[in-house]
Amino acid sequence: MKTIIKTHKIFPKIDGILHGGDYNPDQWLDRPDILKEDIRLMKKAGINCVTLGVFSWSSYERREDEFDFSWLKKVMDDLYENGIYTILATPSGSKPAWLDKKYPDAIRVDENGIKAHHGMRENHCMSSPNVERRIRVIDRKLAENFADHPGLLMWHISNEYTGYCYCDNCKQEFRRYLSKRFDGDIEKLNHAWWATFWSHTYNDFDEIDPPFMNGERSILGQNLEWRRFNTWNVCRSMKMEIDTLREVRADIPVTTNFMCLFEDFDYRVLAKELDYTSWDAYPFLHNDYESLSDTLYDNAFNHVLYACMKKDRPFMLMESAPGLVNWSPYNKYKRPGIHALMSFQALSCGSDTVQYFQIRKGRGCSEQFHGALIDHLGTDDTRIFKEVEDLGQKLLRVKNIQGSVRKSEVAVIFEWDVRWAVKDSWALSNETKNYDRTVMDSWKELAKMGMDPDIISSDDDFSEYKMIVAPMLYLLHDGVGEKIKEYVEGGGQFIATYFTGYVDKDTLCYLGGFPGQGLSEVFGIISEEIDTLYPKDSNEITFVKDGRKALVKDYQELLRVKDAKVLATYEQDYLKGTAAVTAKEHGKGNAWYVGCRLSPEDMHHIFDMTLDAAGIKGRSIPEGVEYHIRYADDKKYEFYLNMNAESVTIENVSGWELLSDKECNGSVTLQKYEIAVVDDSV
Amino acid sequence: MKTIIKTHKIFPKIDGILHGGDYNPDQWLDRPDILKEDIRLMKKAGINCVTLGVFSWSSYERREDEFDFSWLKKVMDDLYENGIYTILATPSGSKPAWLDKKYPDAIRVDENGIKAHHGMRENHCMSSPNVERRIRVIDRKLAENFADHPGLLMWHISNEYTGYCYCDNCKQEFRRYLSKRFDGDIEKLNHAWWATFWSHTYNDFDEIDPPFMNGERSILGQNLEWRRFNTWNVCRSMKMEIDTLREVRADIPVTTNFMCLFEDFDYRVLAKELDYTSWDAYPFLHNDYESLSDTLYDNAFNHVLYACMKKDRPFMLMESAPGLVNWSPYNKYKRPGIHALMSFQALSCGSDTVQYFQIRKGRGCSEQFHGALIDHLGTDDTRIFKEVEDLGQKLLRVKNIQGSVRKSEVAVIFEWDVRWAVKDSWALSNETKNYDRTVMDSWKELAKMGMDPDIISSDDDFSEYKMIVAPMLYLLHDGVGEKIKEYVEGGGQFIATYFTGYVDKDTLCYLGGFPGQGLSEVFGIISEEIDTLYPKDSNEITFVKDGRKALVKDYQELLRVKDAKVLATYEQDYLKGTAAVTAKEHGKGNAWYVGCRLSPEDMHHIFDMTLDAAGIKGRSIPEGVEYHIRYADDKKYEFYLNMNAESVTIENVSGWELLSDKECNGSVTLQKYEIAVVDDSV
Amino acid sequence: MKTIIKTHKIFPKIDGILHGGDYNPDQWLDRPDILKEDIRLMKKAGINCVTLGVFSWSSYERREDEFDFSWLKKVMDDLYENGIYTILATPSGSKPAWLDKKYPDAIRVDENGIKAHHGMRENHCMSSPNVERRIRVIDRKLAENFADHPGLLMWHISNEYTGYCYCDNCKQEFRRYLSKRFDGDIEKLNHAWWATFWSHTYNDFDEIDPPFMNGERSILGQNLEWRRFNTWNVCRSMKMEIDTLREVRADIPVTTNFMCLFEDFDYRVLAKELDYTSWDAYPFLHNDYESLSDTLYDNAFNHVLYACMKKDRPFMLMESAPGLVNWSPYNKYKRPGIHALMSFQALSCGSDTVQYFQIRKGRGCSEQFHGALIDHLGTDDTRIFKEVEDLGQKLLRVKNIQGSVRKSEVAVIFEWDVRWAVKDSWALSNETKNYDRTVMDSWKELAKMGMDPDIISSDDDFSEYKMIVAPMLYLLHDGVGEKIKEYVEGGGQFIATYFTGYVDKDTLCYLGGFPGQGLSEVFGIISEEIDTLYPKDSNEITFVKDGRKALVKDYQELLRVKDAKVLATYEQDYLKGTAAVTAKEHGKGNAWYVGCRLSPEDMHHIFDMTLDAAGIKGRSIPEGVEYHIRYADDKKYEFYLNMNAESVTIENVSGWELLSDKECNGSVTLQKYEIAVVDDSV
Repeated sequence: MKTIIKTHKIFPKIDGILHGGDYNPDQWLDRPDILKEDIRLMKKAGINCVTLGVFSWSSYERREDEFDFSWLKKVMDDLYENGIYTILATPSGSKPAWLDKKYPDAIRVDENGIKAHHGMRENHCMSSPNVERRIRVIDRKLAENFADHPGLLMWHISNEYTGYCYCDNCKQEFRRYLSKRFDGDIEKLNHAWWATFWSHTYNDFDEIDPPFMNGERSILGQNLEWRRFNTWNVCRSMKMEIDTLREVRADIPVTTNFMCLFEDFDYRVLAKELDYTSWDAYPFLHNDYESLSDTLYDNAFNHVLYACMKKDRPFMLMESAPGLVNWSPYNKYKRPGIHALMSFQALSCGSDTVQYFQIRKGRGCSEQFHGALIDHLGTDDTRIFKEVEDLGQKLLRVKNIQGSVRKSEVAVIFEWDVRWAVKDSWALSNETKNYDRTVMDSWKELAKMGMDPDIISSDDDFSEYKMIVAPMLYLLHDGVGEKIKEYVEGGGQFIATYFTGYVDKDTLCYLGGFPGQGLSEVFGIISEEIDTLYPKDSNEITFVKDGRKALVKDYQELLRVKDAKVLATYEQDYLKGTAAVTAKEHGKGNAWYVGCRLSPEDMHHIFDMTLDAAGIKGRSIPEGVEYHIRYADDKKYEFYLNMNAESVTIENVSGWELLSDKECNGSVTLQKYEIAVVDDSV
Repeated sequence: MKTIIKTHKIFPKIDGILHGGDYNPDQWLDRPDILKEDIRLMKKAGINCVTLGVFSWSSYERREDEFDFSWLKKVMDDLYENGIYTILATPSGSKPAWLDKKYPDAIRVDENGIKAHHGMRENHCMSSPNVERRIRVIDRKLAENFADHPGLLMWHISNEYTGYCYCDNCKQEFRRYLSKRFDGDIEKLNHAWWATFWSHTYNDFDEIDPPFMNGERSILGQNLEWRRFNTWNVCRSMKMEIDTLREVRADIPVTTNFMCLFEDFDYRVLAKELDYTSWDAYPFLHNDYESLSDTLYDNAFNHVLYACMKKDRPFMLMESAPGLVNWSPYNKYKRPGIHALMSFQALSCGSDTVQYFQIRKGRGCSEQFHGALIDHLGTDDTRIFKEVEDLGQKLLRVKNIQGSVRKSEVAVIFEWDVRWAVKDSWALSNETKNYDRTVMDSWKELAKMGMDPDIISSDDDFSEYKMIVAPMLYLLHDGVGEKIKEYVEGGGQFIATYFTGYVDKDTLCYLGGFPGQGLSEVFGIISEEIDTLYPKDSNEITFVKDGRKALVKDYQELLRVKDAKVLATYEQDYLKGTAAVTAKEHGKGNAWYVGCRLSPEDMHHIFDMTLDAAGIKGRSIPEGVEYHIRYADDKKYEFYLNMNAESVTIENVSGWELLSDKECNGSVTLQKYEIAVVDDSV
Repeated sequence: MKTIIKTHKIFPKIDGILHGGDYNPDQWLDRPDILKEDIRLMKKAGINCVTLGVFSWSSYERREDEFDFSWLKKVMDDLYENGIYTILATPSGSKPAWLDKKYPDAIRVDENGIKAHHGMRENHCMSSPNVERRIRVIDRKLAENFADHPGLLMWHISNEYTGYCYCDNCKQEFRRYLSKRFDGDIEKLNHAWWATFWSHTYNDFDEIDPPFMNGERSILGQNLEWRRFNTWNVCRSMKMEIDTLREVRADIPVTTNFMCLFEDFDYRVLAKELDYTSWDAYPFLHNDYESLSDTLYDNAFNHVLYACMKKDRPFMLMESAPGLVNWSPYNKYKRPGIHALMSFQALSCGSDTVQYFQIRKGRGCSEQFHGALIDHLGTDDTRIFKEVEDLGQKLLRVKNIQGSVRKSEVAVIFEWDVRWAVKDSWALSNETKNYDRTVMDSWKELAKMGMDPDIISSDDDFSEYKMIVAPMLYLLHDGVGEKIKEYVEGGGQFIATYFTGYVDKDTLCYLGGFPGQGLSEVFGIISEEIDTLYPKDSNEITFVKDGRKALVKDYQELLRVKDAKVLATYEQDYLKGTAAVTAKEHGKGNAWYVGCRLSPEDMHHIFDMTLDAAGIKGRSIPEGVEYHIRYADDKKYEFYLNMNAESVTIENVSGWELLSDKECNGSVTLQKYEIAVVDDSV
């Protein structure tokens, strides 16, 4: 684990952290005074880059094949002359009205087969040949005009890909995709989809529809392939855009902006085609149902998820809100200090950018009240402007962290196929399945123990981790059972839970005992029953070693213990006295199995045991303080983020604190929402 | 009431209780090892019958007019050789993909006029000529191949009929149905539907649509006829299947499986065409909002409902879950002992079968986790397998009960037309109408008093009952008023409540005072107002006789007392001092009227009075114990089911207990979930 | 303020209050006995007018162009001979089945583009040329036959206009409307709609669709114009009907019946075309979530709203329920005395009529249980009949109030454009915006202080008011800023709150600080941030003057105080110490600004200050007593309505009490639900 981490700088032209945001000058072309003032304000706030053109298609091409990029040229030039770089978006995120009118196949059909109408955004049909052709044309024009502009840093492909279409073109693409997936053999598909069920055998790929809401929903393999197809199809469209740009000039990096834990597409598939991952972070802050620390830990989960998709390089915080968003259930302002705290959270998890939606509020339409650096008021003395300006100064002090990256000895598995399959499974309770929450809770608990854990896929390399936690790994990709076996044999600590290894990649149940793929041998148990509790139900378990009790909610399995050691047993209900938590030594490692849903605190107790077995020492981080580390060459930057409204002192900290530019001697005290970035290689 | 009950054995080939379930060997044709093992496991568990072919259409007819029944022949032969009989389903429960593609009129149109897509099940259009033709073909083929198979016990027509279709074919059928119903006279329809209202007079039957959700919903007569039409139409399709089978061989009995208190069709109409009623029982057990006893009393209500549709013969428990279902809000396992308890509940109410969905879990699709005798694990030592096996042994001990049937001196009226009309009425509160719950509560309260009451229609024969309870009999069929009058005059006790006799069979209000059809004379009261209370409101009544108070919730009527005796008066609100409960001696009997909604416990108090008037002595059954009786020739079998988690002793029990094979001397003690079946003729 | 109010009598033929209701004799043409009895019962109850023909299209024109008005002639003649006048409706409220079948463009298309089916009512497409043509024909026939009937009092145009249509005809009308609205200049539209946003620039009016739910929803200007267009379109249809009638005879007054705070159309636009406003009042009485007084204050708000649309004349209570409605969540009866209380509430607010839906219950369909003077029972001794009869007597005693009208020194602004824009804004929280509730709470609080405030639009004349309250005046029509400035300068007290003056009439944000249109100068503050609180959040403010504390919920603004006086400051959160309530002397008046949401009680505290500044003395009215005044020539009628279930004494009352026909000497005592009408000019 002592390998030297190689520094990777995303933007050599920018010496430090990229500080930017989405900017829509095309809304203000009749107000050159405002465009000029914007540059003054941006410079004052330390903005060194803007994202342009995300929704500018109709500004470039007001009518089909009538192009005008003059305004963009002028704006990019002016910005560049003022030291502000540009990330340039392809405009496919929103299509012009003329396009929808001329090419109705551009408009999507919904899950009941009802065609939509022109409007909104991120909703072109990914299978429409007309849309594809028009995107190729506009992207190529854009590249031809701006690929060599000295201000250009990066291509931003489309915007926040969203949703599925059920039109005839998509239907045909789905059939072609399936035919390829099943080698053109309908019997392979029938078997994989268990199609004899309810007489649903297909004779031909042409008989297959998308899983319409008012159509076939009972074939779970079909439902899952539909999600995989849509990932493939959006990825195909994205690659088409990337290829079009690269045909003009190949060396400009590309990204697209992901969204939170968005479910529609397996982002890992898209990430493979990108140079950098980036995402738009909009947590619901200061809400009345959880602590700020809880809200922000979930935000950190996302940061780490996207960081781990490309572990050898930083990622980008493409969007965040100065002040507030305007589309959440309660549009509450960030309290003073939160803006810097959250921006540094992104950096602490491996981002080399702090970017905003948006630089200036537009006067009309549905985002007119979305937070921005520049308000309708238009001055440089608003609370929000001053907080951004202050952050701009802080970013200069940590410019050396750029290019440094994460590493960890511990990982948690989180997987789109599992999310989809768990959600679609007819089992447990749809009210309490909560796969995402369950994974996030384990990750958060490990983070609180100072582990700064990675988030990976079951297909990723396990070799660099001493311990891996895989909550509810219901669906197993091919080979994962063998991989876990080898990992444990080689000395790894692998922690699985209830509802693991029930189905294969096509959602067919394993025969002969869960978990399948040989894992019941590895863990030394078979799960005979998974029992769902009602919300008011509970059970209790007792740990053999220390008599500690733990509450069981939602799910409990009846385990057959083969050759595992029983660590805890049930206290009540029909499972009384049977095994609830087990471990089996297997080769040099251990395979741990948690057969019931426990609270994060009780999972903490189990992680104490597994970390001990892994030879990892946890670190005592005060409640409400987040701790993340970035590595670069021989450097190590430790981030401490105080999410508490009170001051807190962290012990065992030494090194040079970059924001205060002072040395830490053994401890550091952080005020409310304060941040420390300690270079401990000094 | 002392008539000898004639024994009626459903399946002479089976000497005892039929123990079986749905089995889908067509999912495993590539696994002869599994098919062989299944037979071993079934025999071990005491299974003597399986239901085959419920969803096998595409297995029989992979392409139009290409038939293959070889696998079925082999399976039925193998089963028969091993002593396992077959109930054979017609496969119309789910149509193949090729059929939907070739004959799009097979696919339904929804209540907004939107056509669905291929998929799911129980959703072919009942008016499609193409579907009808294809069903005739496949059913005839099936009959020709298997009607004479020695293993065949019964035809199972289609599966769980469900839902309405609003397509043009259905529209035309509805118009033809209406024309017949109203003698081709549109003016009769206009009057019956009060069509002048909102200018909705029709000039021609061809102007009438189904009551689309985005169409005509205000003509309540039309809404009601639409439900009656759908009952008629599904019945027509069912009869078409029965006739097709009987053309080949006429003496095989037929059934179709009903579902719980399913609302779409008046099951009594369908039951008339069947040899036996059967149903699929899936109560939500061990939930966190009611006691197990409450859950199971509701289940018993269903058993008795279906038993009473053919009172001279046993019914069938066609489906129940070994272990759990996988589609409920919380898929919780049956606790140990519940499987036998519930199976015996069915028997106690008159079933001669205990059948399951399903024998073996399929590997894929939406029922892969539905409980089964044989799990994915595949062994004969799972908890569930052992409980079924144990039940198989118990069933042998009570084999003599087969062919015995129910009888009771007390009945409760429950009616589809009333359910539909109450639900569709613009009155009261849609939040609290609760017709079903209200009837079930009265039935349950009487059952707790040891009455084991029947559940009948207002069209059924009243003569065998000493007392009849008809909660909320809002709609009166023709002649029911006169029938009640005669019943009371002849000595019967008839108990009606608020919201009785407001409308005729077309939902037209009676003029001159509710309840109509002369019933205000019979009861000696007129209901002038029915007042709906808000959930936090209540009133109170006081019984004249004993000063007992009772709480009023939801509904209270302002009664004009003509010549009834006032039994209780209101204490509060604007009704203070007016009559709440009345009784009128009429001929040899009494007509009781309860003008407000009372708790089941307070209805109990009223039933004490009415039973007393009927000369029926109640029996003190301990809390949580269900009591049912079956009669056969000169035999009487008393069932005691302990729904409590504690042991309980029942007094005044004598006879031979069949499960323990011991004599009871005055009392019987039942452990948690234990059952006693006492033959008291010994 | 001492101008003599001119008396305006609506119906010279009726000497007193019009007492009537909807009557549907066409449902009973086969029952002449009932029609005859109805007249006897109406006369007994003091009914002097009925509304006929609201839904009689198919009775008049059973088939296209086959007319028959003979039944109507007979009924109107019979009524007139018995002293009962007629308000005659045009029958466009519900179209016959033959019309929908022959002219499918009559049927609406919904917000997803799905065409409905025939049925229900108030749902013809307002843009259908066929519907328009058929309405012209039937209306003209009606006028030709009955305009000169001596019993005719008024035309009732259509019924309860409701809803939007998204069909192609409506789409074309919307485009024409927009072209006219924006002078045929698409660039004007693009700018007003900020269409560059999300690339939504239009090239042609023909590219614009209605804002389909599955189409364009993000252009808030388009959404708002769609609502204005629908107001314009329904108004166009209504005027077409009025013009058709007036072509035959011009001097019959017209009205249409409005509904509560119905949102679909700006009723002020429709009111301009009518001779009188009228509305249908159906509050949910005796509910379990608020006091009766609260329910009825909201009802009074509606009365006053419609009264103020034509301040120089009385309005009409077109419909109210004798007894109960049958379509509310809980259909509870009016308790004894409520019928008179509510009828007098209408009179007290300026109505010269008390009208019902309905005179007699129809036997079938969805209104068969809606309250009526004549029940299915059919007698004249029901509780409801007797209450109506008693009211009929009371109305005779106050006949002299007819023609008197309202006036007030205080007004509250309530505006459809603001309702629509606030609701559609992407800001605050959709859970708590509550524009209507906020306005109603301020109005109610002022009413409780004896102000009997008017309800006006920002476009109305301000000059007669000493004080105007404008809660959440988010959108400013052109010139409103200047008008408020002049009003304050001239000595007015103007009270604004948070979320005022954010956007212009096209929903474009004002630049340079909120409130816009120069109002930040008038109020001396700028709203820099509007912060939304979660439901469990709160803040507190302290008034500078007296240290009084007040709780803040939902919304709080960060104010920049320019030259206003700070009246209260925040106590907590990040706003601690900043201004929450301010006032600025401007000219002879004051501009007050309340930057946060306070309880009605705390607004009362602020109104104490503003009324004091306005030189208005409040009056101490006992809790639960409503107080309204009508003026006529030199007369003044004071109404006291006791909404309490207990008796109450009101001080400082002198004059002649009309109902008891007694003089009041300084005070009046009202029993439960009792009313006093004091003519203090005596």
